Amino acid sequence: MNETLKTLLQHRTIRKYSDQPISDQDLELILKAASSGSTMGGMQLYSIIVTRDKEKMKEMAPFHFNQPMATQSPLILTFCADFNRFNKYCLFRDADTTAYNNVQAYHWAIMDAMIATQNACVAAESLGLGICWLGTVIYNADKFVDYLKLPAGVVPLVSITVGHPVEKPEPPYKLPLEAVVHYEEYQDYNEQSINRLYKEVESHPQTLQLLEENQLPNLARIITEKRYKKEDNLYFTTVINQVLKKQGFL
Amino acid sequence: MNETLKTLLQHRTIRKYSDQPISDQDLELILKAASSGSTMGGMQLYSIIVTRDKEKMKEMAPFHFNQPMATQSPLILTFCADFNRFNKYCLFRDADTTAYNNVQAYHWAIMDAMIATQNACVAAESLGLGICWLGTVIYNADKFVDYLKLPAGVVPLVSITVGHPVEKPEPPYKLPLEAVVHYEEYQDYNEQSINRLYKEVESHPQTLQLLEENQLPNLARIITEKRYKKEDNLYFTTVINQVLKKQGFL
Repeated sequence: MNETLKTLLQHRTIRKYSDQPISDQDLELILKAASSGSTMGGMQLYSIIVTRDKEKMKEMAPFHFNQPMATQSPLILTFCADFNRFNKYCLFRDADTTAYNNVQAYHWAIMDAMIATQNACVAAESLGLGICWLGTVIYNADKFVDYLKLPAGVVPLVSITVGHPVEKPEPPYKLPLEAVVHYEEYQDYNEQSINRLYKEVESHPQTLQLLEENQLPNLARIITEKRYKKEDNLYFTTVINQVLKKQGFL
Repeated sequence: MNETLKTLLQHRTIRKYSDQPISDQDLELILKAASSGSTMGGMQLYSIIVTRDKEKMKEMAPFHFNQPMATQSPLILTFCADFNRFNKYCLFRDADTTAYNNVQAYHWAIMDAMIATQNACVAAESLGLGICWLGTVIYNADKFVDYLKLPAGVVPLVSITVGHPVEKPEPPYKLPLEAVVHYEEYQDYNEQSINRLYKEVESHPQTLQLLEENQLPNLARIITEKRYKKEDNLYFTTVINQVLKKQGFL
């Protein structure tokens, strides 16, 4: 197996980092890799905000719900869907600046931003660094828009913390490959296949510990009642919709 | 520089493939790499549809606007945002099945699907294979939903064609790194910075050839008037909105 496949297959989320900073050389390689992926029509519809200033990390920490990684990593990269730069290019070339103020174009920009994000993650891991996705950006997108001074056309999607690992966690539990892969057409799930596909996850020691801690009978109940509750999701849907409207995509 | 960085930095879109099929071993490595990335709360909110049947490729070709790659590659992988599997898991565990019928949750599933997509691309390229993103899926999402039999909770986002390359195209032109990277906060663009950042792209031989072919004065006008026109984007916005409503996210 080649080195790249090993890097991809050995991915672990790393939440604890040493104080060692990321070298300028490593940062540049990560950013170059991020910008080397495919992009819709060559438009490069994303931007990356580099945070190394510890004071700024502390100020943004509440928007990340004070997750420790958000202040304890030496580097945070925030990836944004960005049509502002391309719209500005159109503005200064007498071209239509309103062609991309819609949900279709927003999807292209999300994809471009996510290609860049995942390339950055793989690059960082290939350099022996550890990364963690902070999904909190899409929850508190309004606050990141203000704090990072994002103009219309720019929507923050995710932050990645990057650092030198001081932990080596167990591999995350995953569904078997057959759970996520379909051949030629989608095969919907029934009670029998769900039971079979989730069997390993449900009997995993990490899951059993969670059931004990939460005093709930299964992982589905923990996730829907404790971690990602409907009422929260509906509230943060209104936030992201307001951001999409303010930034010009809705 | 390590092998993984080389793979990332040497990315080229490959549109021409030999007839040689992708081996089962390579396909399995690509799919395993795709499923090895980060995922929101461990939920694995994506599915991958594998297309190897040439008849099915031909039937789907019109939905890809008959791009040659859509029938001439030996393998197409279609990546979908997928909350159906997790919702079904909730259904069979007496948990809330409606917590994720919203735009916030849709964003998580898009991100999970894009992590898987980009990992698959990097894995394929590390194996010496070539890939091409087909953005047409998000245009004709309604047709892919029907053809691939995607149930509620599943939205098709992108297809990747994979094959053994028979071309070695020039590296794509990119904006300089400073165009997409911001330090600590977003620095908005003005006419001067746009002129500077787009100078290399605008003087690239590929661009000059496009201007000649299209008889238009600049790339912005070509993209807004020929390639990605406002009227098309608005039409395909209605399509994706209908799909998001039908699939339960709006």
